[in-house]
Formats: sequence, structure tokens, C-alpha cells
Amino acid sequence: MIKKKTAKRKNKYVYFFGGRKADGKSAMKNLLGGKGANLAEMTNLGMPVPAGFTISTEACTYYYDNNKKYPGRLKQDVLDTLAKVEKVMGARFGDKDNPLLVSVRSGARVSMPGMMDTVLNLGLNDVTVKGLAKETGNERFAYDAYRRFVQMFGDVVLGLKPKGKDEHDPFEVIMDKIKNEKGVKLDIELTTDDLKRLVKLYKDEIKKKTGKIFPEDPYGQLWAAIGAVFESWNTGRAIAYRRINKIPEGWGTAVNVQSMVFGNMGEDSGTGVAFTRDPATGEKKFYGEYLINAQGEDVVAGIRTPQPIEKLGKELRKPYNELSEIYKKLEKHYKEMQDMEFTIQKGKLWMLQTRAGKRTGLAAIKIAVDMVSEGLITEEEALQRIEPEQLNQLLRPVFDLNEKRKAINEGKLLAKGLNAGPGAASGKVVFNAVDAEEWAKRGEEVILVRIETSPEDISGMHAAVGILTARGGMTSHAALVARQMGKVCVAGCGTLKIDYVARQMQVANRVIKEGDYISIDGTTGEVILDKINTKPSEILQVLVDKKLDARRSAIYRLFEKLMKWADKRRRLKIRTNADQGDQALIALAFGAEGIGLCRTEHMFFGEGKIEAMREMILAKDKAGREKALAKLLPIQKKDFIEIFKVMKGFPVTIRTLDPPLHEFLPHQEKEIKKMSEVMDISVEKVKAKIESLKEMNPMLGLRGCRLGILYPEITEMQVRAIFQAACKVQSSGIDVMPEIMIPLAGHVNELKQQAVVVHKTAKEVMEQSGEKINYTVGTMIELPRAALTADEIASVAEFFSFGTNDLTQTTYGLSRDDAGKFLYYYYEKDILKDDPFQTIDQDGVGQLMELAVKKGRVARKNLKIGICGEHGGETKSVEFCNKIGLNYVSCSPYRVPIARLAAARAALKRKKK
Amino acid sequence: MIKKKTAKRKNKYVYFFGGRKADGKSAMKNLLGGKGANLAEMTNLGMPVPAGFTISTEACTYYYDNNKKYPGRLKQDVLDTLAKVEKVMGARFGDKDNPLLVSVRSGARVSMPGMMDTVLNLGLNDVTVKGLAKETGNERFAYDAYRRFVQMFGDVVLGLKPKGKDEHDPFEVIMDKIKNEKGVKLDIELTTDDLKRLVKLYKDEIKKKTGKIFPEDPYGQLWAAIGAVFESWNTGRAIAYRRINKIPEGWGTAVNVQSMVFGNMGEDSGTGVAFTRDPATGEKKFYGEYLINAQGEDVVAGIRTPQPIEKLGKELRKPYNELSEIYKKLEKHYKEMQDMEFTIQKGKLWMLQTRAGKRTGLAAIKIAVDMVSEGLITEEEALQRIEPEQLNQLLRPVFDLNEKRKAINEGKLLAKGLNAGPGAASGKVVFNAVDAEEWAKRGEEVILVRIETSPEDISGMHAAVGILTARGGMTSHAALVARQMGKVCVAGCGTLKIDYVARQMQVANRVIKEGDYISIDGTTGEVILDKINTKPSEILQVLVDKKLDARRSAIYRLFEKLMKWADKRRRLKIRTNADQGDQALIALAFGAEGIGLCRTEHMFFGEGKIEAMREMILAKDKAGREKALAKLLPIQKKDFIEIFKVMKGFPVTIRTLDPPLHEFLPHQEKEIKKMSEVMDISVEKVKAKIESLKEMNPMLGLRGCRLGILYPEITEMQVRAIFQAACKVQSSGIDVMPEIMIPLAGHVNELKQQAVVVHKTAKEVMEQSGEKINYTVGTMIELPRAALTADEIASVAEFFSFGTNDLTQTTYGLSRDDAGKFLYYYYEKDILKDDPFQTIDQDGVGQLMELAVKKGRVARKNLKIGICGEHGGETKSVEFCNKIGLNYVSCSPYRVPIARLAAARAALKRKKK
Repeated sequence: MIKKKTAKRKNKYVYFFGGRKADGKSAMKNLLGGKGANLAEMTNLGMPVPAGFTISTEACTYYYDNNKKYPGRLKQDVLDTLAKVEKVMGARFGDKDNPLLVSVRSGARVSMPGMMDTVLNLGLNDVTVKGLAKETGNERFAYDAYRRFVQMFGDVVLGLKPKGKDEHDPFEVIMDKIKNEKGVKLDIELTTDDLKRLVKLYKDEIKKKTGKIFPEDPYGQLWAAIGAVFESWNTGRAIAYRRINKIPEGWGTAVNVQSMVFGNMGEDSGTGVAFTRDPATGEKKFYGEYLINAQGEDVVAGIRTPQPIEKLGKELRKPYNELSEIYKKLEKHYKEMQDMEFTIQKGKLWMLQTRAGKRTGLAAIKIAVDMVSEGLITEEEALQRIEPEQLNQLLRPVFDLNEKRKAINEGKLLAKGLNAGPGAASGKVVFNAVDAEEWAKRGEEVILVRIETSPEDISGMHAAVGILTARGGMTSHAALVARQMGKVCVAGCGTLKIDYVARQMQVANRVIKEGDYISIDGTTGEVILDKINTKPSEILQVLVDKKLDARRSAIYRLFEKLMKWADKRRRLKIRTNADQGDQALIALAFGAEGIGLCRTEHMFFGEGKIEAMREMILAKDKAGREKALAKLLPIQKKDFIEIFKVMKGFPVTIRTLDPPLHEFLPHQEKEIKKMSEVMDISVEKVKAKIESLKEMNPMLGLRGCRLGILYPEITEMQVRAIFQAACKVQSSGIDVMPEIMIPLAGHVNELKQQAVVVHKTAKEVMEQSGEKINYTVGTMIELPRAALTADEIASVAEFFSFGTNDLTQTTYGLSRDDAGKFLYYYYEKDILKDDPFQTIDQDGVGQLMELAVKKGRVARKNLKIGICGEHGGETKSVEFCNKIGLNYVSCSPYRVPIARLAAARAALKRKKK
Repeated sequence: MIKKKTAKRKNKYVYFFGGRKADGKSAMKNLLGGKGANLAEMTNLGMPVPAGFTISTEACTYYYDNNKKYPGRLKQDVLDTLAKVEKVMGARFGDKDNPLLVSVRSGARVSMPGMMDTVLNLGLNDVTVKGLAKETGNERFAYDAYRRFVQMFGDVVLGLKPKGKDEHDPFEVIMDKIKNEKGVKLDIELTTDDLKRLVKLYKDEIKKKTGKIFPEDPYGQLWAAIGAVFESWNTGRAIAYRRINKIPEGWGTAVNVQSMVFGNMGEDSGTGVAFTRDPATGEKKFYGEYLINAQGEDVVAGIRTPQPIEKLGKELRKPYNELSEIYKKLEKHYKEMQDMEFTIQKGKLWMLQTRAGKRTGLAAIKIAVDMVSEGLITEEEALQRIEPEQLNQLLRPVFDLNEKRKAINEGKLLAKGLNAGPGAASGKVVFNAVDAEEWAKRGEEVILVRIETSPEDISGMHAAVGILTARGGMTSHAALVARQMGKVCVAGCGTLKIDYVARQMQVANRVIKEGDYISIDGTTGEVILDKINTKPSEILQVLVDKKLDARRSAIYRLFEKLMKWADKRRRLKIRTNADQGDQALIALAFGAEGIGLCRTEHMFFGEGKIEAMREMILAKDKAGREKALAKLLPIQKKDFIEIFKVMKGFPVTIRTLDPPLHEFLPHQEKEIKKMSEVMDISVEKVKAKIESLKEMNPMLGLRGCRLGILYPEITEMQVRAIFQAACKVQSSGIDVMPEIMIPLAGHVNELKQQAVVVHKTAKEVMEQSGEKINYTVGTMIELPRAALTADEIASVAEFFSFGTNDLTQTTYGLSRDDAGKFLYYYYEKDILKDDPFQTIDQDGVGQLMELAVKKGRVARKNLKIGICGEHGGETKSVEFCNKIGLNYVSCSPYRVPIARLAAARAALKRKKK
């Protein structure tokens, strides 16, 4: 239902524009919609805009608040304003000699394409069409306009437009019939009489389909069209569109009624769209295309190929020159790249629309940076012009667009999943991690295809160029790891039927076998058959591979400039989640200021490591565990040395062992046998132990600090490895700053117990080595209870890091592994607007976070607080983290620049307030 | 560490008592400990108490606060006070002719048995022993006292007492050796010379074991004993005891030094314990036992059989008469049943202790009710005298105690698990639910033994007299269901090795086969081999079976009186968790005022029901589900009719389907095959569907309202059944008050969506039947997010019910199914004090509950709020629920009286404040 907030102000519902004066202006977007406000603005700027008027959004909300009645004075106001339009345009609505024709269009605050189609040529009937014919001296033109109007009116206002793809437009059917009869192919080949006959047949069809007679009265036509626009605000597709784009129902739509101009009145007429800069590259040049002797819909239809805008100067010099002046003026006026529509009627230019133009990520940056150089906007405005997510486009490898389009046109699109790890990858399909590693070793590029991934697959994922899974959401294991590794990933592609045994997958009716090429687009979620060539991100080439050329360097300079501006404004520090030196290196290149989450468990996967880990888990007592832990210690130490060396004194937050132990357990017979050999116990005993470790709800089971509490020797080994590494690196002259992070504490006593182990072990190692390491001990806040008792927790913890993945799971009581099966329905039914695993649920999870920040800082004034959940790299969540006063966000290496920009924008937003 | 709160007051550390005057009184328990305060009180009351003094608990805290130093003036005060004692007793400490002997005992605020043993006869040495011999004219007595003292001093003060069960007391070893040498069996057969030799040998042993010479100086003995008492406050067992009983470390202990009197000085001497009423039945009669010519330890040792107290009047009339006067005076004075220790020395009565006596549940009630009749205490005091848990004893069947003791003595105790469902049961072992049902049908009493239970076992659990599981905690499925059904249950008995295939279990080295008898005591957790006869709860016989006799009626009247008093005081309403009419009937008999939780899923188990449920789950589409749901509707309707009829207008809160669907799934090949036949699809398809429903973390998966949201037809069917039943019952003239409860809502939109289904369906059914049912729609608050957004939730929910089991799981991130594997360690290491699944975690979960109450009532002023988690019947949790303003608690039928009493006590406690 529309919210009750009908305008209380003096009821002006109709806003005139025309000549050189308009009632409205561009600042009145909320009232007039984007289109109407900009038409008014252009009018006021003295640009040639066909006169018309805008019925405000308040009329629409009134309509819905008052049982679909128009405001009392609306009718008279429309009539009065129409009179003004007639005066300016020198024509009269419904006049038999010199009829004014109008277009009727919807226009909400923000563009909602597809909400309502346009009705053109309104005002025509059997009488006025003759006037138009006479006036223009072109009977065929008049009847062509008439038949187009009847069709549009029938389709749009009377609802005959087909709803499904299988239905045909009844008017098209008639048109095709006539063409067949006449043996012609193009509309243009029809005669005036054919067109007259079409009008008749169209009207009959309307009678037949709707039971109503086509309204000959132009005013009847007008009111029907206005009502249709209002109604279009609440059609199923409009509601769906609003839901997806989070547009409030209460906004309503405006209605734009504007005098018609015609680009199809001969070779001195035309129509086109133009941009003030190149929307693909951002280059500062007039960009666009047009058609001579055509209406707008002809440009879209694609039957004739439009010409580049430069050519217009040669064909129609005067209007072109005028347009050139206008585009410059518009950009300067709006201080923003404009996307314009224009029509030239018999040599006279008319502006029909202007708005901020959509652009690629690269263009967004270039335009913003250039506009700062040009003095058009400030650095701060530039930062606000670029959506952080747009940076992603600059950081990921991409498909060659032509190749991809071709493949899709050839029907090679296999499926669409979740765009879990942006970028593009082509490779041969393999179905398990071992194959992925082996194939990669012999130089093959492979895509690892799994029903879902587990930590065992880590090496295989690392070896693959891309990961494709049939199950799991945006924060499934595959998605998380892929993003951290910077791998391309399409997840949760439910239509894939994967058969591990047969080493093949089936989708639709196609069978893809091991070794077949597929291409996955992690930015769109598309899965495509066969190989498509990819191009790597330019910025990455400069930063990491140091491959420089003019183009790449130019892009890099833009990027660097923008990042510098962002860094100057942001309050939040940006860290990264990285477990290995190479990841940390990339993150540093991208501007990370520390590691916010180093997961120690990922270090245990891979050749020769996993066995020791398994031995530790399967050990029957402490002695057995310690024996295995002794094997793990050097492995961990080596990894830590590497990380400390790379991070050169930046803080490194290392989390002690976290996941449920069974994640490390062997499942295959072969692996179980191996463990029975390694440990010299029977296969049965290994199996029994595995069975005994099984949990009903591992996410709520023996994991996190519970492991370290039950088996303090694990924590001890990890801390020993950290401090041995830290001492070694520090003694070589490189600063180190370890922060030991205890996961999943719910009660302060859990933390206390683990802190004792950390301090004791650290002291031992430091005494042995003679180095004094500055370190802190803190905890993840990832359970509601930890947030609720943050004051107690902070009495022990020297820092907090929000683990918002787990915090979301427990606050919602929602397993991210299982939620995929039903959350889709929640979005569909509008129960949830955002995926809480992607964007922090501010009302629930965020409330706990705020509470924890407040309570934590009461207990420890300068408590350092960060976030290391997946949300740490998501724009809206970064803004929230800034708002509640966190010190830093930590995200995967490839999202560091995005977080830098998001943090700057968040800071600017706060400043504004 | 002991908290720093050393006394600031004028440092009086030593409190004298003796003659007819004492420095202390009974109100000074905190300072003097229970024992010391009561000795002072008795002295002031003019009772014959051997003189002595109490060193206050403040001295103990000083001792720990000041690096184990005594307060400066303590030594002098002790000496001064000892002089007073000497004066009153007419003997002198360390005097060679007339030595004063003393006992030294610890004495904390509350009784801490086993913290420190007593040291008797202190003051004896090689010189004073001769004085004692002369004074008493009994050399043997004197040396017997001496050797006892040296042993006690060695054991208790010097720490030679064996720690483990396998060690022997070194003094006993020597004693046995001497006895062997002499060829005698009893201590009494030893001669004076033997005793002298023992003293020598004991002292040698002390020298050998401790390297120290036994202190001959009585003052040295005294200070060593005082120091030992202080030290005993911080021994491992004292710390453990304090932890278990939640006694603050900072309380410290007092030390009681008291003149010795001897009950072993001939036939005119004796010792005994007595109660002012019968502690087993509560009957108002003098109750106790004594031994002539004995010391207190002889009564405990059990070598001689004590005599009933009545006989003492015949043997030693004068002291008996005096004791009779004293006991009456004490009870009247304390207004509480007393447990006294006395000694008669050569015809003179001495009182050594008085305290409130421990008693059975029945006695507690009888004494409290009687004391009200006697005008000793008020009704409110009576309510405060009875621990709610004591009522349990009156409500559960019990073993014949003699039989049970005999069985345990015969070594038949097999294991000890959790006392999950109180009461006693004997039966034949069966290992699956189907057998349980079949055997029960043919009249066998069976104990269902499972590794753990699942909803599939419901009918089997119902058929069994008791349930025994190897896994799962106090809130495991077995425990929950058992308590609700009123079944005896021992859960989590980890030492059982159950082999379903071999139909046997192994424990220790015993194999128990199917059909063997075992007995389980759900009040203690004991599992015993063979059959032990049980006696049913008297109250239940009266209430339900209407079996009346004088004894039972008397007990019932007591119970009723107490409940009436409780009902007058309590603010909280008491409801019950019941799914079936018979459960509801029992709860009503116990005073339930409505059903707080009717779980609809339990209705689906059993012959002919589960198949329809499975068909619903396995259905491939909505049509398939609806077909199966149509079969389930009449089943549900029938159950609801029964419940509404029983509840006669009391509110009935019915929860829509809640558990993860896979709980209903068939797992055995046979069952899967059956489903494939019922549904006419292949076994493979059934298996595939089962596989597809599997979840990583079902507790956080597709359950609760998520089911109803995904499959609204389920909610619809359930609501239809509820309202058809309600209309039918109401039309027959019986009031109904259904409250539809939506489980697991985390977001208000979930509730909104389900509320729409409920209202729509309810309206339909009411229109069809013509009945108008008063009903409400509310929700469980069982997720942190629901509590955090309770204001939003309450905008839709007409009532809240806290599901504290789930709320605890999510707030702690702790699966109650898996927590058993590590929580034991948390208690052991003092990380958690209480099981949060038993007692509400007030700091975390409780904080969320308070928040939800507050926010909920802001949005809806008169929001009805209850609790239906297991905590609803737990005393401390009831108190918390009262405090935060809930309207009712709901618990299993058998806990309704407990909750009534707990609610009354909670209200009284608030009133006091």
C-alpha cells in the first residue's frame, strides 16, 4: 500500500515547461521525476525543448491514497496548462486544422526502464489526422503516425501488449497479414491506403479484444493515458523492479505530457542519442549516434544502422552545431557526463531528454578524475561519483567481449549461477582437486567443478583458474576462498548435474566431460561452453607483473590518483584477509595496511601437511597430539616467517585454529588407509575416531576457542610457531607486530583461559630467543553472547574483530551452508531485501555490533575494533562500520581498493551530516 | 585469590562462648560460621555448651589477604579467651594435673562437609596425658584419647591422611599390625600398654613421614591446628566443593576451639544425634539415635548399632529429660526443625551442635505446613522453607530403598549418567522403539536403551517405562521428551557401549542382552542391574488414579495446602508443554492454567501417521504435498479436539511445524522401500530426495517458520485442523482459546507472511462452520535477531513465547546435541558455572530476553509474554522470568507444581526487595 503522505502544500500538481520558461527545475526531481525535472531545466537554460507539462508524483500518491481518484483541481490545471502549450507550439489539441499532438510518458525519481512504454502521437483521430496531413502536406506521414498511435494506445493504455514471450502483439499480427497480402517486407513499402486500412483494422481489434471503442476524443485519450501511467506504478513488473532496486513504493511516478516533434519528416529530419563523453573509456569527446528520417523507436529497433554522431555535422550542419553547443553547456551545467536524446524536425533541433549517463568502471574513474583536472568538480565530488563496486571492473580479468557475445549467440550459454568471484576464466573441466593440481602442473588451465568445495580442495582451487560449484551461496566456502585467492568463481549453479564417478556434468541436455573447455564469467555468473579468450586487468599487470605500456600506465595513474584522494579522506584503516605471503603481497600493492585475518587452518592443507594435521586430530591422547603438533610447528613457523617478512611491521592478526576438526578428516577409503599406516593403528580405529568426531551441527560444535580450551597444546603450538617466526624476523631487522586472535569466544572465561596459554608460551619463546616482541591478544566477536557481554570480554581482549559471517549465522539462526536452499524464496517474496551474508543486517547483527563497540570501549577506552568477515569489503557494510566507529575493515586482497574508496565515501557522507 | 575486603571495624577476631554468656549469636553466621554462631546462641539460651571460642571468618580473610599472616592481636586474644574458657571449665590448657583439652573444627557460613576433619583431644602430650589419667582415674581412657589425638593431628594437621582410595592411613596400618601381633580384632581389646606403644609408634611414623617431631607443646598444637583450618579453606577439594555449591571464595572459614567432653567415660556417658522432627516423614516427634559409652566417631563408624533416642530416657533419664526440654526450646527458638549433636559425660548433658536439619521433600512440606498450623511460622515463611526441587520427590515413582541399597552393595551398579528424567523404573532392556512398542503391547515393562533418541522413537519412548541413552545432555531429545512424558530417564551414560545389531550393550566388563532386567534411577542417574521394585508417587495416585487411602490423602492435603498458599502469592501464570490430551490432563491436575507449547510435530509419529508425513516431505511438488497433507489433517484435527476438550477454555498455544524435515525422514532400507511403494516412485528417487534434504547444520537450516514460508500449504493444513477442531469443540458448548505460535521467526516479515496464512485460513474455516473463535497469533522468540528486533516483531505478534533452548543455542553458538562432548570440561575448569541449557544464562541470553520484553511492550503495551523452553520449569529461571516481567512460564506437566512454588517464592523475593 502507498504510504499516507499526500502533499499538504498548496496543491500544485501540474508544471509547465516551454518557450524559455518552466515551472520546474532540475532540483525538483522528487516532485517531477528525473525526466520532467531535466526537461524543465533545459527549458530554463533556453534550450529548444518541445513544450509540455509534468503532472507531479504527488498527484500519483494522491491517486493511490484516495481510492484512485485524481486530485480535484487536476483536470482544470491540465486544461489550463495545455492551453499554454498550445500557445507556445502554435497548434491546438484536437484541432481539425492544426492539431497539437503529444507524447505521454511516465517519469519516476529514478529511471525505471520498462515500467511503462511511451505513447506517441496522442491527439490523433479520424478528424485531426486529416489536419495533420494537410498541415504537413504529407498524408502518408499522417496516417503512419495515426496507425502507430492506435497501436501504442492499444498496447500500452488498453493493455493489449503481450505479457509473455510466446504471445504475439495482435497489431503486429495484423500488420504481418497485410504485408503478406501486399507481398511487401518493410513498413515503408505500405501505401497510405494500406495505413488507413490498418487504422481501421486496429480499431476493430481493440473493440474485439477489450469490448471498448477506441476513443476518438483527444481529451479522453489523454486522461486514459495519464491514468495508465499512474496504474503502471503498481503493475507486477514495476513492483518487482522497485523491490530489486529498493525503490520505495511511496515515491510514485510523474507523468510527462509533451508536444510531439518528428524526426521522420524527411531528409532534413532525424533523431539520435548522444553522450558528452565516451561512456566506455571516459574519453572527453562527443559521442553518439543518429538516424536521418527516423523516429526514436527506429534507432532502437536496429533495422537501420545508426551513424556516428560526427557525421551529423556533415549532413545537417546547423542543428549539429547547435547540439554541440548544447552538450557542452549541459555538461558544464550539470557537471556530469550527460546522456541526451534529440530529434531534428525539418532542420530544427529539439531536445527530448538529458540525464547522467551510465558508464563503465574505467570511464567512471577517467571522467571523475578528468573533471577534477578541468575544475568542474572537487576531489570529494569525484570520490562520490564512483561506485566502489565499479573498481572491481578494473581489477579483474575480463573476456574478450566480442568472442563472448558470439559464443552466446551460438547458444553456448550453459547456465547461470551466482557471480561469486568476479573476473573471467576459461579452462578444461576437472572434477576434483587432485586432478586440478596434476593437470595444472603439466601446464593445463583448468576450471575446478565441484558440487561444493571443502577445505580439502584448497590446493586444487589454487591450481585452477576458476571454480564452478553446483551448491552454495555468495559466502559458501568456494566463494569465500575464491575471492580471497582472487579466483574467478561461479557458485550455486543449481542446474548442473555433476557426476564425480563418470567425471562429467550434465546441464540442460548437454554433457560436459572432464577435459572439455568451459568459460565462466564470475562477474555475471555465466557459464559458457568452449574457450573464450580473456584479458587480464590492466591495473594488476602494472602493480604485480610490472608490465607497463602507455595505456596501462595511464589507467594506473588514474587509479592511483583516485586512491590517493580516497586515502586523504577516509578514517577507517584497510586491512586484508590473507594466509600466505603471495596474497599479502598483492594486498600490500593494493594498499592494505595490515592483515586483519590470517587463518592458520588453511596452512594445513596440501602435500605432507594434511597428514600431520589428521594425525593430530585422530590422536588418542595428549601425547599423540603433541607428537603430531611437533610436525606441524615448522610448517606454521615457515608460513608466519614469510608473512611477517612481507608485512614489514604492519599489524598481522593471526587467528588460532577455528574450524570444526572434522573438516580436516579423511573421507575417502584411500586417505583413511593412509592415516592408519601413518599412525600405525587399524583402519577400523581410524573410522571409529572419525565417527566419534561427527557432529549434528558442526557450526555450533567443537570449534573455535573450544578446540584450544580442550586441547591447549594446539594453541600452544600455534603461538610457539608465531613467536618463533616473529623473533626470527625481528632479529633480522624487520619489524613485526603480531596480534593473536582467539576465535568464537562466547564467555570471558574462555578468552581468559586461552590468553593465559598465549602469554605463557610467548614469554617462553621470547626468553629463549632473547627478542622482545610487541604483541596483543584479542578476540573475534562472532557470537551474540560475545557482543552482549563485550564489556566483560574487553576486560581481557586487547582488540575486537567482528566475525560477521558467524555473527550473522547465529543472530539469524541461519547456516550459510544451508540457507541457499530457501533464502532465494525470501528475496523473491520480499521477506528479506539483502543477503545478510553479503550486506550487514544493520537492524539485527548491526545492533549487536553497535552494542559491542559501546560496551567494549566502556571497559577499555581505546579498544581497537575491526571487522574481518566477508562484509569487510562490501560498500554498504563499510559505511556502517565507519558509522559505528570501527578502526579498520579487513577484506580479501582484491577488494582492498574497493574498501579504500568505500571508506572514503563513508567518511564524506558522515562529514556531510 | 581472596577478595580484598579485610575488616575495617575494631579488630575483634575471637568470640568467646561458655557458662551462660557468649560474645556471638546466631545472627552472626557470616562472621562466626554456622557452627560457631549456633554454639554462641545455645550458650546465650542457657544451654549446657562446653566453653570455647570462635576465631572469626575475618581472621581467615585477613590471613589470605596478608600473605598468610595472622592478624597482629590474634595470638593475645586467643590466649586471653582461652583463659576465660579455663576459668569456666575449671581446667587449664597444658596443665599437668588438670589439663583442659579442646577440639578444633572449621566452620564456614554454610556447611561444607569434608572440607576439614575435626581434631579432638588437643592439648594432650606425654605430660598432660598423665594428668588426664589421674583426673579421670582411667589411664586406659587417657591413652586411648592420646593415641586418637596423635592420629588425628597427624592425619588432619600434618597431612598424613591418605588422598586416594588406594592409599592406606599409615596409622591404621600400624594399628592393624599391633592388633595382629596381639591377635585381637577390636580397638577396645587393646591394653593401656598397647595404647602407649601406639602413641610412640604414631609419633615415629610422623617423624618418618614429615621429618618433623610431633609437637608436645599444647600451644604449638593449637596454632598448628588453627593454621591447618585456615589452609583447609583452599585445598583442592574445598575449592571444588565451593565451585559446585557456588560458595564465594571470599567468605573464608571460622575456627571453633571448644572444650572437650567425653561420651566414652563409662556407662553413664554417651553421645548421639537427634532431630526435633522426623526428617524422613516430617512427623512431629523427637527423633534420633545414640550410643552409650562412645565418642561421636563411633556413631558414624557403624560398628555398634545406635539405639533409638526414646530408649535414652530409660537408660539415662535426667540428661534425656534435659535434652527433651532443650530440643523443644531450640525448635521454638529457631522456628525450624533442628539437627543436634550431644554428648553425655558422666551423666551430664552437653550440647555440641545445633543446625537446621536436612529432610526429604515430603518432610519439608509436612514440617512447613505443620509449623504454620502451630503458629510458628507464616505461610510465606513456609513457602520459603521448601525448595521447589524437593517437590519432585513427591511426584516421582521411587525405588524401594532397601532393595536398591542391597543391589548396589552386591555390586550391581553398572554406570552413572545424567539424572535427566526423575523417578525410578525397572524393566527389560530393548534397543529400538519398535521392539519397545511390541514388547509393551504384550505386557512387558521395558527400558528403551538407545545411543540417542530421535523423534522417530517417540512411540517407543511412550511404551517404555524408562529411557536410557549413551549420548546427549540434560536437554537432549531423550531428556526433553522424557520429562514431558513424565518418563524416567538417564541420559548421556557414556560408558555404555551399545551394539544395535547384536542387541546388547557392554558396560565395564558386563554384557547386558536384550530382555535382561535393569533398573534406572532418573533422580540420581544410577543404572543398576536386575529388577528393583518401585513405588509410585503418592500424590499422583491421588490426583490421577484416584486411589485414596489415609496416608495418601494426608500427603495430598499437605500438597494442596502448600499449592494454595503458593497460588495466592505468585504473579506468574503456570502453563504446561503438552501435545496430547493425557499429558494435558495430568498437567491440569497439577494446576496448569493453559498449554504454553503444543508441539504439532509430535503428533505425526506413530503407526499410520509417519508415512503421511514422509509422503508430504518427499513430495516433488505442491500438489503432492497437498495430497499428503490431506491425510494428515484429520489426524491433527483429532488431536486438537482432544486437547481443546481437556483444556476447557484455558489458552492453548499451538506451534506450527518446527523441526528440520529430515528428522522425519526414513533412514532404514525397509522404511525407504515402504515410502517408495506408498508414493509409487523408485527407491532411488526416495533416496535422492532424502539426500537433497540433508543439511550441514540442520539446527540452523530449513526449519521453523522457514518451512511454513516455503510451503504455506503446511501451515494452512495445520491452521485448518486447529480451527476445525476449535469450531467443533466450541459448538459443543466448551470454550476454546487457541493461540497460534509461529516458530523461529528472525525477521518481522517472516511472521507477517505466516500471519496472513493463519488469518486467511482461520477466516475460511470459521465462515464454513459459522463459529467465531477468539484466537491470537504470536511467535517464539528463540533467535537473537527476534529479541533484538522485538519491537518490530511485536507490531505483528500478539504474544511472545521465549524458546530459550534455541535462544541459548544461538546466543552461545552452541549445539545442545554436540555440546556434551566438551561442556563437561568447561564446568571442570570453571569456565562455566551452570549448564546454560538448564539454567538461563542471565548475562547473555537473559540480557536478550530483557531487551525483548522491553522492546516488545513498547510496541504493544499489553503484550503477553511467556517462556516455553525447558528453563520454564527450573527454579532459578522461573525467578528470572518473574523478575523481567513475563506473564507465564510453561513447563512439562510433572514440573507444574514445582513451577507454582518457584513462582510464589520468586514473587516473595521481589516483595522483600
